[in-house]
Amino acid sequence: MKKHLITGGAGFIGSHLARRLLDQGDEVTVMDNLFTGNKSNIYGLMENPRFTFILHDVTQPFWGQFDEIYNLACPASPIHYQRNPVETIKASFVGMLNVLELALKTKARVLHTSTSEIYGDPLVHPQPETYWGNINTIGIRSCYDEGKRAAETLCVDYCREYNVDVRLVRIFNTYGPNMHPQDGRVVSNFIMQALQGHDITIYGSGQQTRSFQYVDDLIEAVTRLMQLERYPLAEACRRHGFDIPVVNVGNPNEFTIRELAETVLALLPESNSKIVYRALPMDDPQRRKPDITLAGELCDWAPAVPLAEGLKHAIAYFRTRLPGACA
Amino acid sequence: MKKHLITGGAGFIGSHLARRLLDQGDEVTVMDNLFTGNKSNIYGLMENPRFTFILHDVTQPFWGQFDEIYNLACPASPIHYQRNPVETIKASFVGMLNVLELALKTKARVLHTSTSEIYGDPLVHPQPETYWGNINTIGIRSCYDEGKRAAETLCVDYCREYNVDVRLVRIFNTYGPNMHPQDGRVVSNFIMQALQGHDITIYGSGQQTRSFQYVDDLIEAVTRLMQLERYPLAEACRRHGFDIPVVNVGNPNEFTIRELAETVLALLPESNSKIVYRALPMDDPQRRKPDITLAGELCDWAPAVPLAEGLKHAIAYFRTRLPGACA
Repeated sequence: MKKHLITGGAGFIGSHLARRLLDQGDEVTVMDNLFTGNKSNIYGLMENPRFTFILHDVTQPFWGQFDEIYNLACPASPIHYQRNPVETIKASFVGMLNVLELALKTKARVLHTSTSEIYGDPLVHPQPETYWGNINTIGIRSCYDEGKRAAETLCVDYCREYNVDVRLVRIFNTYGPNMHPQDGRVVSNFIMQALQGHDITIYGSGQQTRSFQYVDDLIEAVTRLMQLERYPLAEACRRHGFDIPVVNVGNPNEFTIRELAETVLALLPESNSKIVYRALPMDDPQRRKPDITLAGELCDWAPAVPLAEGLKHAIAYFRTRLPGACA
Repeated sequence: MKKHLITGGAGFIGSHLARRLLDQGDEVTVMDNLFTGNKSNIYGLMENPRFTFILHDVTQPFWGQFDEIYNLACPASPIHYQRNPVETIKASFVGMLNVLELALKTKARVLHTSTSEIYGDPLVHPQPETYWGNINTIGIRSCYDEGKRAAETLCVDYCREYNVDVRLVRIFNTYGPNMHPQDGRVVSNFIMQALQGHDITIYGSGQQTRSFQYVDDLIEAVTRLMQLERYPLAEACRRHGFDIPVVNVGNPNEFTIRELAETVLALLPESNSKIVYRALPMDDPQRRKPDITLAGELCDWAPAVPLAEGLKHAIAYFRTRLPGACA
């Protein structure tokens, strides 16, 4: 039975990961400051004797003996991170430092969840892991993007200098139950708007594309990558030109934002929402689509859940989060 | 009489800045951990009653009441920062955090020395401040490049969220007395090799270009930018599309690495060094040249020292650093 720490484990993705690792029969400690995470995401786990919740901020040092640390702690939606840019970049960088220091001292394996945002507004399409990105250091998204980039760098530096066993996953747009209903991201926005009969707001022309991954597919890739033995994995990565494992995890099926809005409306025929258009915010990327060849080769993985099916689960969840609903 | 703190003030650039501010009649505190800085750079200042040296690492919190903080603390040459990547990125990020926290509490003005390295291997030439850069997050230079990028982001975040008065200078290749003779950078390498009659090593074809700025020109720009009143400066920056002052400071005259080697040899006719070629290291940028329009407009500044003249001063300095020389 392995012992896992999940920083940010009361958030959207962390809570799914916690459930999955408990289902495997392992011990799970979730650490979260509940800034954007929510205890309601881990209701149902609290009384499991193999589960522990710690209310703690990842930017403050912590201690514990774990086999594996999944570092997920960071506000991830623009609406949250732009409210507290300093705390966001500190969560990324100082949080990563604390995780890596603990891993160094305890020989824990680390999986860090990086993001497609490190590619910024990409000039290459789709984005392979070798693409360097296109980011404004002083833009309004940079607290998140540059914080995540610097956290990746810390990971490779701790691996090269101190031999810490680190794996990087660059997560592309992911959706599903336990998303924050007011996180301002496009899937939660559209579903909440459609469920409430409000206008569906598209920023820009709606022709910008995204790829949407259902959360179960992500969790499958993350846990597979973490389970691989270190040295065969390192060898496979070297053959692809990487010092450490770094893989894109996302669904390469590309949809325009307008198509997403139309799919949500098709799944909710009772909704009388209309689509309206608003100005695009600063530095918003135009296209984002993962090249997932490497994750496929290393982890024998591919996304399996089609958009319409994943959206059904997400809609069922968001119904429980409507004002006045009984969760 | 103003009170200044210079972090990294015993380094190459910091020691010139300290001298300049003392010459103006101000009080100067130099903080340095002497990892790459050297006390010999500040000999001659130590007994000045307006000068104080503190042996301290910028990654550890510190306190003091200063009017102006110049943040220069970070190993800046690949040979140094690649030896300690973790300490390098911590010096950039955690050092910047400590500087900004002190500035927030004491209302000090901050000038942060960023670098042309934030542009990476640029796809735009010359580089204006609006260029976003082209950087490998997981390459061997990334501890420096990404650390410096994240430090810029921290600066704008402290300005936007907490109204700290911050100015950013992106320094391009700079040379002059007090450079570390073994820092592995091209000007010091070539001069030390030529002075000792060793082969002059060019990495790659020698056709990659650099712009070389004499340190006096840099100090002039930095002190001018720091002296500008905050709000007229902020207004001028907004007209150029920036929330905070961010200026390139460098000499736009472009030379190939081969031309630099030939100029050094022409200034040392007694040298019998020959030019030899070696393989280019990973991620080495091919071209780098500043667009300095903005610094010119904001600070009424332009570089004034021609390469051959600056190199003469540098050569005179490096003669004193030859093995066996009396400094």
